[in-house]
Amino acid sequence: MRIVSFGEIMMRLTPPDYLLLEQTNQLTLSFVGTGVNLLSSLSRFGHKTAIMTKVPDNSLGRAAVAEIRKLGIQDDLIGYSGNHLGSFFVELGFDIRPTVVTYQNRLNSSFCSSAKETYDFASAVKAADIVHICGIALSLTKETRESAIALAKIAKEQGKLICFDFNYRPSLNQENEVNKIRSYYEEILQYSDMVFGSYRDLTELLGLVVDSSLSAQEQLLQVSKEFMEKYQIQQFSGTIRKHGKEKELTGFIMAGEHIYISDSIALTYLDRIGSGDAYAAGIINGYIKNWSKDRTVNFATANAALAHITRGDTPMATQQQVEQFMYNPTIDLIR
Amino acid sequence: MRIVSFGEIMMRLTPPDYLLLEQTNQLTLSFVGTGVNLLSSLSRFGHKTAIMTKVPDNSLGRAAVAEIRKLGIQDDLIGYSGNHLGSFFVELGFDIRPTVVTYQNRLNSSFCSSAKETYDFASAVKAADIVHICGIALSLTKETRESAIALAKIAKEQGKLICFDFNYRPSLNQENEVNKIRSYYEEILQYSDMVFGSYRDLTELLGLVVDSSLSAQEQLLQVSKEFMEKYQIQQFSGTIRKHGKEKELTGFIMAGEHIYISDSIALTYLDRIGSGDAYAAGIINGYIKNWSKDRTVNFATANAALAHITRGDTPMATQQQVEQFMYNPTIDLIR
Amino acid sequence: MRIVSFGEIMMRLTPPDYLLLEQTNQLTLSFVGTGVNLLSSLSRFGHKTAIMTKVPDNSLGRAAVAEIRKLGIQDDLIGYSGNHLGSFFVELGFDIRPTVVTYQNRLNSSFCSSAKETYDFASAVKAADIVHICGIALSLTKETRESAIALAKIAKEQGKLICFDFNYRPSLNQENEVNKIRSYYEEILQYSDMVFGSYRDLTELLGLVVDSSLSAQEQLLQVSKEFMEKYQIQQFSGTIRKHGKEKELTGFIMAGEHIYISDSIALTYLDRIGSGDAYAAGIINGYIKNWSKDRTVNFATANAALAHITRGDTPMATQQQVEQFMYNPTIDLIR
Amino acid sequence: MRIVSFGEIMMRLTPPDYLLLEQTNQLTLSFVGTGVNLLSSLSRFGHKTAIMTKVPDNSLGRAAVAEIRKLGIQDDLIGYSGNHLGSFFVELGFDIRPTVVTYQNRLNSSFCSSAKETYDFASAVKAADIVHICGIALSLTKETRESAIALAKIAKEQGKLICFDFNYRPSLNQENEVNKIRSYYEEILQYSDMVFGSYRDLTELLGLVVDSSLSAQEQLLQVSKEFMEKYQIQQFSGTIRKHGKEKELTGFIMAGEHIYISDSIALTYLDRIGSGDAYAAGIINGYIKNWSKDRTVNFATANAALAHITRGDTPMATQQQVEQFMYNPTIDLIR
Amino acid sequence: MRIVSFGEIMMRLTPPDYLLLEQTNQLTLSFVGTGVNLLSSLSRFGHKTAIMTKVPDNSLGRAAVAEIRKLGIQDDLIGYSGNHLGSFFVELGFDIRPTVVTYQNRLNSSFCSSAKETYDFASAVKAADIVHICGIALSLTKETRESAIALAKIAKEQGKLICFDFNYRPSLNQENEVNKIRSYYEEILQYSDMVFGSYRDLTELLGLVVDSSLSAQEQLLQVSKEFMEKYQIQQFSGTIRKHGKEKELTGFIMAGEHIYISDSIALTYLDRIGSGDAYAAGIINGYIKNWSKDRTVNFATANAALAHITRGDTPMATQQQVEQFMYNPTIDLIR
Amino acid sequence: MRIVSFGEIMMRLTPPDYLLLEQTNQLTLSFVGTGVNLLSSLSRFGHKTAIMTKVPDNSLGRAAVAEIRKLGIQDDLIGYSGNHLGSFFVELGFDIRPTVVTYQNRLNSSFCSSAKETYDFASAVKAADIVHICGIALSLTKETRESAIALAKIAKEQGKLICFDFNYRPSLNQENEVNKIRSYYEEILQYSDMVFGSYRDLTELLGLVVDSSLSAQEQLLQVSKEFMEKYQIQQFSGTIRKHGKEKELTGFIMAGEHIYISDSIALTYLDRIGSGDAYAAGIINGYIKNWSKDRTVNFATANAALAHITRGDTPMATQQQVEQFMYNPTIDLIR
Repeated sequence: MRIVSFGEIMMRLTPPDYLLLEQTNQLTLSFVGTGVNLLSSLSRFGHKTAIMTKVPDNSLGRAAVAEIRKLGIQDDLIGYSGNHLGSFFVELGFDIRPTVVTYQNRLNSSFCSSAKETYDFASAVKAADIVHICGIALSLTKETRESAIALAKIAKEQGKLICFDFNYRPSLNQENEVNKIRSYYEEILQYSDMVFGSYRDLTELLGLVVDSSLSAQEQLLQVSKEFMEKYQIQQFSGTIRKHGKEKELTGFIMAGEHIYISDSIALTYLDRIGSGDAYAAGIINGYIKNWSKDRTVNFATANAALAHITRGDTPMATQQQVEQFMYNPTIDLIR
Repeated sequence: MRIVSFGEIMMRLTPPDYLLLEQTNQLTLSFVGTGVNLLSSLSRFGHKTAIMTKVPDNSLGRAAVAEIRKLGIQDDLIGYSGNHLGSFFVELGFDIRPTVVTYQNRLNSSFCSSAKETYDFASAVKAADIVHICGIALSLTKETRESAIALAKIAKEQGKLICFDFNYRPSLNQENEVNKIRSYYEEILQYSDMVFGSYRDLTELLGLVVDSSLSAQEQLLQVSKEFMEKYQIQQFSGTIRKHGKEKELTGFIMAGEHIYISDSIALTYLDRIGSGDAYAAGIINGYIKNWSKDRTVNFATANAALAHITRGDTPMATQQQVEQFMYNPTIDLIR
Repeated sequence: MRIVSFGEIMMRLTPPDYLLLEQTNQLTLSFVGTGVNLLSSLSRFGHKTAIMTKVPDNSLGRAAVAEIRKLGIQDDLIGYSGNHLGSFFVELGFDIRPTVVTYQNRLNSSFCSSAKETYDFASAVKAADIVHICGIALSLTKETRESAIALAKIAKEQGKLICFDFNYRPSLNQENEVNKIRSYYEEILQYSDMVFGSYRDLTELLGLVVDSSLSAQEQLLQVSKEFMEKYQIQQFSGTIRKHGKEKELTGFIMAGEHIYISDSIALTYLDRIGSGDAYAAGIINGYIKNWSKDRTVNFATANAALAHITRGDTPMATQQQVEQFMYNPTIDLIR
Repeated sequence: MRIVSFGEIMMRLTPPDYLLLEQTNQLTLSFVGTGVNLLSSLSRFGHKTAIMTKVPDNSLGRAAVAEIRKLGIQDDLIGYSGNHLGSFFVELGFDIRPTVVTYQNRLNSSFCSSAKETYDFASAVKAADIVHICGIALSLTKETRESAIALAKIAKEQGKLICFDFNYRPSLNQENEVNKIRSYYEEILQYSDMVFGSYRDLTELLGLVVDSSLSAQEQLLQVSKEFMEKYQIQQFSGTIRKHGKEKELTGFIMAGEHIYISDSIALTYLDRIGSGDAYAAGIINGYIKNWSKDRTVNFATANAALAHITRGDTPMATQQQVEQFMYNPTIDLIR
Repeated sequence: MRIVSFGEIMMRLTPPDYLLLEQTNQLTLSFVGTGVNLLSSLSRFGHKTAIMTKVPDNSLGRAAVAEIRKLGIQDDLIGYSGNHLGSFFVELGFDIRPTVVTYQNRLNSSFCSSAKETYDFASAVKAADIVHICGIALSLTKETRESAIALAKIAKEQGKLICFDFNYRPSLNQENEVNKIRSYYEEILQYSDMVFGSYRDLTELLGLVVDSSLSAQEQLLQVSKEFMEKYQIQQFSGTIRKHGKEKELTGFIMAGEHIYISDSIALTYLDRIGSGDAYAAGIINGYIKNWSKDRTVNFATANAALAHITRGDTPMATQQQVEQFMYNPTIDLIR
Repeated sequence: MRIVSFGEIMMRLTPPDYLLLEQTNQLTLSFVGTGVNLLSSLSRFGHKTAIMTKVPDNSLGRAAVAEIRKLGIQDDLIGYSGNHLGSFFVELGFDIRPTVVTYQNRLNSSFCSSAKETYDFASAVKAADIVHICGIALSLTKETRESAIALAKIAKEQGKLICFDFNYRPSLNQENEVNKIRSYYEEILQYSDMVFGSYRDLTELLGLVVDSSLSAQEQLLQVSKEFMEKYQIQQFSGTIRKHGKEKELTGFIMAGEHIYISDSIALTYLDRIGSGDAYAAGIINGYIKNWSKDRTVNFATANAALAHITRGDTPMATQQQVEQFMYNPTIDLIR
C-alpha cells in the first residue's frame, strides 16, 4: 500500500520557549505541510508513502528533502526547480494567549511556480494506491490549481482512491472571490472519494444551507449528507473543537447514512498546529486496515490529540503508541 | 504625548527551562525595571516614551541602552556614569512551586549612586506630558530618594501629570524603619496625581486603619477613599490576585467616589514578574485616550494577564493584541 | 550523622523542550540513580552523605564524580573500574502524553560488574550511621546482588540502621523468574529496619494475600502489618498516586500498629522521575530528627511533590524550602 | 550630521557552530543589509542615522524594526507594507572551506515591491546631510530601481552629498543583460559624489579598458582616474583582498590624482560577510570628520578587518575600539 | 550501482563549544560509524547505498534509523533486535590540544550480539554491486567476526567487488592477542579486492617487514607491493598525515606496480574524526566512475580534507562541492 | 598535603560563540577567581585543597559553592554572609580582536565586605600545609587587605609555606595611589616564601630599577635577584608572553642565583583568561613533588598553555594530561 500526496513542503521557523519574534534571535527550523504531516503519520502506521512536490536545488532544498526522508517519506517524486521555499513563523501561544502564525511569501515558491507539465502524474499515480491532495493548492497559484486538478483527474481515470482535504483558509484568499475558489473546489470534489473538512467548509465555502433550529450535531449530519450526495463522496470526516481555557477534541466520520462520533479528549496544547493532518492520517489508516468506523474515529481522534501534545506540526506516534494512549490513558510513565 | 519615567534599568538573569541556579550554567539576560516595563508597554500603545536613568559607560551599559531602544523607548535621557548595573536572578516557578528572585548588590549601581544634580530635570520635564516615578527610588539610596522627590516637585511646578507607583517591597527595607520610609512616601504623594498600589500599601506602609468587619471590597473602597482625600490623589488603581493552584487576576480603579472592578481572568503563569507594570501602562493608556473607567480597568487587567502568559518582565502586547484577547478570548490560533 | 548509600550512578540523557529523540539531536546529561537522588536530598537537609559505587576511570567517570560532589555527596567511597556507565533516555511527557524511558545496556556497567570483594564494606559501615540499599541491586547482576546482601549483613552486625527500598521493576526482570527475585528480597529483608515500597511490592513480588473486600486503605494497612510482622520491619512507607489528567500524590507511613496518611497534593508534573527517592529522603530526615510521624509523612510527601515540579531526577529543595511549600502553599513569588 | 540610507532590511538565518543546513535545525536570525550595516557602524562613530525602507506590518516586520533601533538606527523613515522580507541562509565556512550563501525569494519583498510614490523622498532628503544608496536596488525590481534613481536626483537637487555603493553581484542578475544594468548604473553615477566599488566593477560592469601590461596597482589607478573623470566622481574607494589559507585585507581611496593605500592586515575570518559595508562606513566617517586620506583609509580598513573577526554582517566597533585596534594591535586582553 | 556496507551504527555524544565533559551537561547526539560515514558520502556522489546492521527496537533505534535515512542511506537492511547501541563521547580538541574519545560499552550492542544467522546475506549481496566491510567487526565479538567473514565469502562467491577497511585499533584489542586478530584479517583478506589501510596496518598487524634504510615513500611502496601480492589485492589506498601545529593530509593509491600520491593539503581541523571514511568514499567513487588514479587520489584527499573542516564524523560534500574545493581553493564565499 | 587559598569566588558571565554583549542575550555562568583556578588545578594534580572565602547565603551562593565542590575543592572554609557576589563579563576575542573584560561592582561583595574577625585563620592554617594569598586582596577593601595580611602573619608564625601572587592590576586601582598599594605589598612580602609575578610588578609597582642596556632576559634576572634579596623570597616565577597574531608562552623560575626558562609554546587562544593561575599551580605542584626546576618550569608552562586552549578561566588538566601534552605534542587524537 503506497500513498502519494501532492503538496508543498514549507519551512516553519519557531522561536524557543514561548518567546515572541521580538524577544529572541534563536529559531528552530522544521519542514512541514499537510502532505508532509499526513504521510509522516501514515509511514509510522506501517505504510509506504511518497510526497510529490518541488523544492529548490540548493542547500535549503536538500535539507528539506533530507528531513522528509528522516520522517519516513520516500523522496523519489520530489523535483528540483526554482529557488524559494514558502516559510512561516510560529509564535507559540501559552495558556489563553493564542498562537500567532506569520506567513512569508509563498506564491513564488518552487512548488507554487511549477506548472502541471513539470510533473509525471501518470507514472506517479500508477505506482500509488491512494492519492492525497490538499485543498490549499486550489487557492495558491494557477500552477498549483491546475496541477491538483490534473492529478485528481488522472487518479480517477486510473481508479485510485482519492483523498481530498479542504484546508480552506479564508485568510489566504483575501484577494480571491469566494465564488471563484468554490468553483475550483467543486471541480475537484467530483473526483474525490474520501474528504476531510469541517461544518464551516460546507456552509461558508460551498454555501450549503442548514436548518439552524437543529442541534449542532443534527446540523452537521444534515449538511454532511447533503454534501456527500451532491458530490458523490464516499466518506466525510473532521474534528470538532472546544476552545477556551478548557480545550477538548472530538472527531466524526460521516459514511453511508450514519455519523460516527468519537469520545471527546480534554487537553492542554503543546503545539497548536498539525492535528488536523494527524486526524486525517488516522482515518486513512483505519480505512486501509478495514477497521470499524467506531475504532477508526477514536483512533484518528487519539492521533490528533497526541499531535497537540507533541512538539511540531508533524505527528510522531506509531500505531502502538496511539493505541496505548487510547486504552491506557492514565499511564504516565513507560519504562 | 510623551511619557518620561525615572527609574532603574536592571539586569535580569534567568536560567532556562524552569531550572534552578544549581542545575545549569546557562542564563538569559534581559534589561528590565518598573520604568522599562511600563514605557515598553506604553510605546506599544502608540505613545512616545523616554527613560531617565544612569548606566555605566561600558559594554554592559551600551547593551542595556540598545535593548531599551529595541523596546521602543527613547534613550536621550540616559546618562553614563558609574560602573555597575543592579542585577537579580529569577528561578522560575512551575505549577505550585514559587518563583524565587535573588537580588545582587543594587545600592552601588550607576543609578543608585547618581545625585540629583547629575540630572537636568527641568528640561526633561519640559519635554514631557506625563512624568512617572517608581516608589522603589524612595527606599534605595539618599541619591535616588532626593532625585525622585526633586523631579516630582519640578513636574508639579510645571503642571505635568505625575504618576506614582508605590512598589513598596518590605524585603528591600530590612534596615530602614517603616516610619522613615513612610515619611518619604508622604512627601512625594503630595505631588502625585495618579497612584498605583495595593490595599496593603495603604494599611501597612501608610498606616491607614480600616473597619475589619467590612467585606474585602468595602475595606478597599473605604481605605482608598481615605487615602485619596488625605493626599489629594486624583485616581488610585491596582490589582487583586487569587493565589494557589487556580490563579486569578482582577483590577480596580478608584476615582471620584466610585470603584471600578474589572472582570476576573483565570490564568496559568508563564512568568510571574512584571504584570503590575503592564497594569499601570494599561491604566495610563486609558487615561490618555479618555476611555471610560470600565473600558480602562478591563483593558489594563487584560494587559496584565497577557504579561503573565508572556516571557519576561516586559509587556509585549500592542493595543490591538490586548483588545483581541479581551473580545475574542477563545481564539487559540491567529493566522 | 552520615548516611551511606550503595547504588549505581547512571547517565540520564534528556531531549529539551518535550521533544522526542527523533526530533532533536540536543541532549542534556545528568547523573542520577536512587542513591544519588536520596543522598542529594539528605545533604540538603543537613546530613553528611556518601555514595558507595563504581565508575569508569575516564572522562565520563570523572564528570560523574564531579557532579556527585556538586550535589553535596562525598566521593570518598567511589571506586574506579570498568569502562561503562549505565544510561537511559527520558522523553518527557506532556499533559496526558506519558514520559518514555529507554534503557541502554546496564549490566556491563562498572557498578554491575564489580564483585563484593572490590568494596571495603566493613570500613564504610563503621564510618556510617545509616546504610541505604536500593533493591534494584538484587535484580541486576550476581555481583550487585551479592554485594548488596553482604553489605546489609555487615551493617546488621555493626548495629547500624538499614534502609531498604524495594524499587522492584518488573520490566527489568524479564528473564528472571519472580520466585528467584523474591528469595533475594526475602534474604535482604531480614536485615532491614526501615523499608520503602508499595502495596504492589508486597502483593505481587512477595506474594502476600489481602482480603479484596476491604477498602483500598484497609488493604494497605492489612498487608503492611503482615509484611512488617513477617520480616520484623520497624517502619514501612511509600506513596499512593492518582493518575490521569488531574494528578495527586499522597504518602503513608506504617509504624507500630498505625498507618499515618499525609494530606494529598494536586499537581502538574514537570518531571515524572525521582519523586520516590525524594519521599524516602523526607522519611529518613524525619526519622533522624525525631519528628512525629504526622510531621514526617507530610514533609516527605511535600518533598516528593516538589521533586515532581522540579527538573531532573534529583530533589533540590532544602528543608526550609520544603517547609515553606508546606506551610505557605499559595505563595507564588519569593523575593 | 544625519545620514539616510535607502536599502533593504533582510533576514539572515545562520546555523550555529559551522554546521550546514542539513546538520541542524537551529538557526540564528539577524536583520542585515548594506544600509543596515553601514548605518549601524556610522551610529557607533557618533552620527545620527536613519534607514529608508519598507517592511511588512506583522510580527516579523516589527521584530526587524526593533533590531534596527537596537543597532542605533532611527526608524522614522521605515514604512509598513507588503507581507514578505527577503531572506538568506549563511552556512559559515571554516579554514579553507568557503562560506555558502543561499538566497530565498527577494523580489516579492515589501521593499522590492514598493513603488517610488510610496516614499516621501523630498522630506527625507531635507532632514539629511548625506544620502547613501546601495547599487543592488538597480538590479532588483523596476520599483527599487526607479526609487533609487528618483532619490538620487532629489538629493542632487537639494545639494546633499550622495554616496553610492556598486554592490554589483553578477549572480543576482542572471536574467538581466549586463548592458541594461550598466545603463542604470550610468544614470545614477551622474548624481553620485562618493563611490564605493572595485576594480572589477569598473572593468566588467562599466566596461572600462585597462592596459594589462601595467602592475595591478597601476591598473587600479588608471581605471579609477578614467572612471572618476567620466562620471565626475569626487572620491572612489574600495578594498583589495588576498584569498586562500593566509588572508589579507587592504583598502584604497582614489581622490584627486592620488591613490591612498592602507597598511595590509592579515586575518582569519570569523564571519565572511559585511566587511565592505564596514569599510564604507569608515570612509564616510573620515570624510565627515575631515581626516587626512591616509588616516581615513587606514581607519576604514581596520573597521573592515574588525568586521571580519566579529560575528554577523553588522560592524559593531566604536571609533575608540577601531583606533585601539589600529594603534595597539598586539593587545589581546582589555580589562 | 548499489553499495552495501556491513557495520555498526554508533551514537556519538559531543559537548558543544570545545568544552570537556566536566564543563557542561549539553551534548549533541549523532549516529555515526565507518559504514554510515562511507555510505553517506557515496550517496552524495550519486550512488544508491544501504547499511546492513542491527539496532534496538525502541525510540533510540528508531531515531538512529531516521538519521540514517536523512543521510541518504536506505534502511531496508537494518534489523531490530537487542536493546543497546554502542556509544562514545568526543571531547573536541582545539589547536594543539588533542581530541579525546571515550568509548562506552560496545560489545553488548544490538550489532555486536547479532549472530550471522540473523542476517540474510545472500539476498543482500544479490541486490548489491559493491560490498563494504569494516575491519572493526573482526575485533569486536565472535558474532560480528563470523558475520563479516560469512558476508565476505558470499560476496566473493557471487562475484561482487569487496572493499575492506583495516580500521585496526590497537586500543580496542587490549585483551586479544595480535596473532589471533591477524589470523582473522588474513582470512578476510583472501576475499577482498579493494583495501583501505595504512603502513602500520601492514607492518604492525600483518607483520610484513620493510627495509628501514629506504625513504618513507619507498618503504610504503615496498610493503604495499608485498601485501598486494601476498593477499591478491587489486588496490590498496590510504592517507599520510603530518601532525603538530601545522597539519597536512596526503593520499595514496597503490595499484598494479605504481603508487599514486595526491597533492598535500594544509589544514586546521574542525572535527578530527571521520576523514578516513571520506577518503575511502572518494576512492570508491573514482573507481565506480572509472576515473584515472590521479584524479581519484586527489578527489579522495580533497573529500577527506573537507571532512576535517566540517562538523561531525560524517562527510557532507557533494561531488560538485569537492571539485569546487579542488579546483578553486581560494574561493571563500559562494553566493 | 592540603593547600588553602584565601580569595574571592567571582561570577564570570560569557556570551557564546564570540558574540558581544550587544549581540546576544545568552550567557554562560561560571564561578572563578585566582584561588578557585589555582586550587582546581592542584586538586587535579592529586592534592587536597580548600578555599577560604565568603559567599551570600542564597541560591547564588549555594550554586557557587556547589561548583567549587564540583571542581574538587573542599568547601568547609567557605562562610555565608552578605548578599552579593562580584561579577564580570567576558566578551571573548577572536584572532587579533582582543578579549574585553567588564567588571561589575565588586567592592560590596560578601568577600570584600567581610572583616578579618569573621575568619578563623588560626584553625584554617593549622589544618593546611601551604597557604596561598592573591594580591588582589590588597587593592580591594580595607577588610580584604587586613584579612590577607593577618592570614599571612599567622601562617608565618605557624611556619607554613606562604605563596603570594602579585596579580597587580593597575586598572583596578584607579583611585588608590601606587605608593599606598606598594606599602601593602611590601608588608605582605615579608611573610612570603614563594612569589608569582612579572617583570612589570617589580619595576612598576615595587619601583625596582634595572639597567635598560641589558637584554630582556638579563634585566629579568637582575631585577628578580634584587627583589628576592630585598624581601627574602625563596622562589620567584612567572611567564613571558609574545603577543600579536603569532602568540607564544614561556615560563621562568628564579631560584637561588639561577633563572630556569621553559621551552616556548606557540598557540592560538581559545580563552585568554586564567593561564597565570594554571602556571602557578604547575609551579606549586613541582615544588610539592620535589621535581627539578627544569621539569617544574616546563610542566607549569604546559599547564598554562593548556589553560589557554581550554574553555573558561579554570585549568582542567590532570598531571597525566599535562605530561602527555608535553611529551607527545603531535598527538591529535586520543582514543
